[in-house]
Amino acid sequence: MSASDARRYVTVGGRFEMLHGAIESPTVAYETWGQPTPAGDNAVLLFTGLSPSAHAASSPDDPTSGWWEDMIGPDKPIDTSRLFVVCVNSLGSCFGSTGPASERQEGGTYRLDFPVLTLEDIARAGHAVVEHLGLTRLKAVVGPSMGGMTALAYAILHPGHAEGLVSISAAARSLPFSIALRSLQRELIRSDPAWANGKYAYDSPPVLGMRLARKLGMITYRSAKEWSGRFGRERATDDLAVGARFDIDFEIESYLEAHANKFIGTFDANCYLYLSRAMDLFDVADHGGSVEAGLARIKAERALIVGVETDFLFPLQQQRELAEGLGPTVGDVDFHPLPSIQGHDSFLVDMDRFRPVVARFFEG
Amino acid sequence: MSASDARRYVTVGGRFEMLHGAIESPTVAYETWGQPTPAGDNAVLLFTGLSPSAHAASSPDDPTSGWWEDMIGPDKPIDTSRLFVVCVNSLGSCFGSTGPASERQEGGTYRLDFPVLTLEDIARAGHAVVEHLGLTRLKAVVGPSMGGMTALAYAILHPGHAEGLVSISAAARSLPFSIALRSLQRELIRSDPAWANGKYAYDSPPVLGMRLARKLGMITYRSAKEWSGRFGRERATDDLAVGARFDIDFEIESYLEAHANKFIGTFDANCYLYLSRAMDLFDVADHGGSVEAGLARIKAERALIVGVETDFLFPLQQQRELAEGLGPTVGDVDFHPLPSIQGHDSFLVDMDRFRPVVARFFEG
Repeated sequence: MSASDARRYVTVGGRFEMLHGAIESPTVAYETWGQPTPAGDNAVLLFTGLSPSAHAASSPDDPTSGWWEDMIGPDKPIDTSRLFVVCVNSLGSCFGSTGPASERQEGGTYRLDFPVLTLEDIARAGHAVVEHLGLTRLKAVVGPSMGGMTALAYAILHPGHAEGLVSISAAARSLPFSIALRSLQRELIRSDPAWANGKYAYDSPPVLGMRLARKLGMITYRSAKEWSGRFGRERATDDLAVGARFDIDFEIESYLEAHANKFIGTFDANCYLYLSRAMDLFDVADHGGSVEAGLARIKAERALIVGVETDFLFPLQQQRELAEGLGPTVGDVDFHPLPSIQGHDSFLVDMDRFRPVVARFFEG
Repeated sequence: MSASDARRYVTVGGRFEMLHGAIESPTVAYETWGQPTPAGDNAVLLFTGLSPSAHAASSPDDPTSGWWEDMIGPDKPIDTSRLFVVCVNSLGSCFGSTGPASERQEGGTYRLDFPVLTLEDIARAGHAVVEHLGLTRLKAVVGPSMGGMTALAYAILHPGHAEGLVSISAAARSLPFSIALRSLQRELIRSDPAWANGKYAYDSPPVLGMRLARKLGMITYRSAKEWSGRFGRERATDDLAVGARFDIDFEIESYLEAHANKFIGTFDANCYLYLSRAMDLFDVADHGGSVEAGLARIKAERALIVGVETDFLFPLQQQRELAEGLGPTVGDVDFHPLPSIQGHDSFLVDMDRFRPVVARFFEG
């Protein structure tokens, strides 16, 4: 992915303290849509899932589609004719923000010398953009998936700074099932000899490990129900001899192969490892001793919590717990369990269900 | 795993026709419990899941525990003081039955020259044991997981030969979600350079690929709910620096590592690939053009279909479809959806729920 012409950068001066270390003068990449009001009361801060860049939507400077194109723009649910939207590339990622693949002042790239990354660090790096833009209060902090956890971290670390909180298909903490899946994804990358303990040449990265990890990710991002309808038992070939090397018999296998191949080359392997582990480590209970105590630190006035019935990576019960936990302090909590069949990825594809829910929140 | 002293062998004379090829004089390993009646009307044929041997339970010849120890024995649900139980090691496996790791007459082992394996082939190899033992009719054909699909194949291929059919946590066909998971497991093995396109030395097998495939299997065999209760977010270590190589932070990761390491060395990689693919290829609809038509070929008098709410590899809906599909011809179909939390593996661990269900079927 080449850098968007819409991409802007903030460099945080001096030493940036992280939860488990520090780095010198990191850069945070971001994009914006719409205009801030003179009163500065219409800003929306958006955090992303693990893999996207800050290019959430098209804009005059970059007319290519963004990862949430249907959600952000004039007259769209996050209406940029009224709202000023800021999306940040996560610290630790590789689309403009400083991460394991970035050059460091003393030369070379960080690789595994990058400090252990947390979502709290990503939230604080996002706040550096907010401060740079002179936004003293946010209309809302928003995020899906990992971004929804980061939005929680932001709301905990900066209580009262955001009037609203929107957390989509996220959770207050990672549970062992999703930890196990992500741990295995990381092991697939680390097991690729080309990973070389993080010291791969950037022109010969661990493509095998990344491809396998991506396939596992794709399986966990969707749902059995959707795939049964889409693929059934369609064969890619009727010639079983073609599969004598056990590669492809069914359409679902072709689909995974094609999509995994698209992913490799766009994401740095070490960055992936850091961001994936940051999701495992996240736990609202780290802020006050329990999930309840952590959520009680959030001083938003309104919250929107959305989850999907077929999401088995972030099961609906986790969003229900979030909504219930926010109730006592936030008061106005809107919980939407959606019957989408596309699993965890629904927020990217089932727009007919997600658009009205998000639109209603921002109309209010 | 060393050969059990209780293990017996049948060698099928001559050419054994498989769906996609043929092999010469295969051996089928089996074990038995109890005694056949003179009328030969008390025999139960048991097929296994992908990985077990025929050692389903202890016996005087082999007092070690079997994989279904709580289910089979005197006064147990499959009561060997009344019933004569025969468990077969699947054709294509590596615990005594002929498979890709077996010697062939012309020297060397089959490896990838073994014909593409199907569950129908495994069912027919099981029938060779039935004929060898002179059993003209079975009280029931029984199997969990892959064995439950093989039991279906047996009942279709030998209509009327088994009075009863017991299919546990199985399905009439594999759907794209489970195909995707198994396809990825096979790719993990095939991606291990040590696999060497199936030509690994037997003393240096692809242990990395097998370990990774086993971890993915373990994740899919259980449930998120069970693990949340068992492991929560317990740390294996509080020292994040220990995980600087991204290996182990949480107990769930230690657990997977320990169990995966136990598995490797016990199962031949090529056999695993063949059996795994046989599950993908299985489709009752191959027998008559539709699942309904295939199931209509089964001439059993009674059927027990069991499934588990938390099984996402063989979701409950698939057992419900089986039960409904068997209704028109079998008539007496008992469908038991169980609320076990251990996912697909429940039939091995949630014995308090499974024992009474199976016991009731065999009392009848």
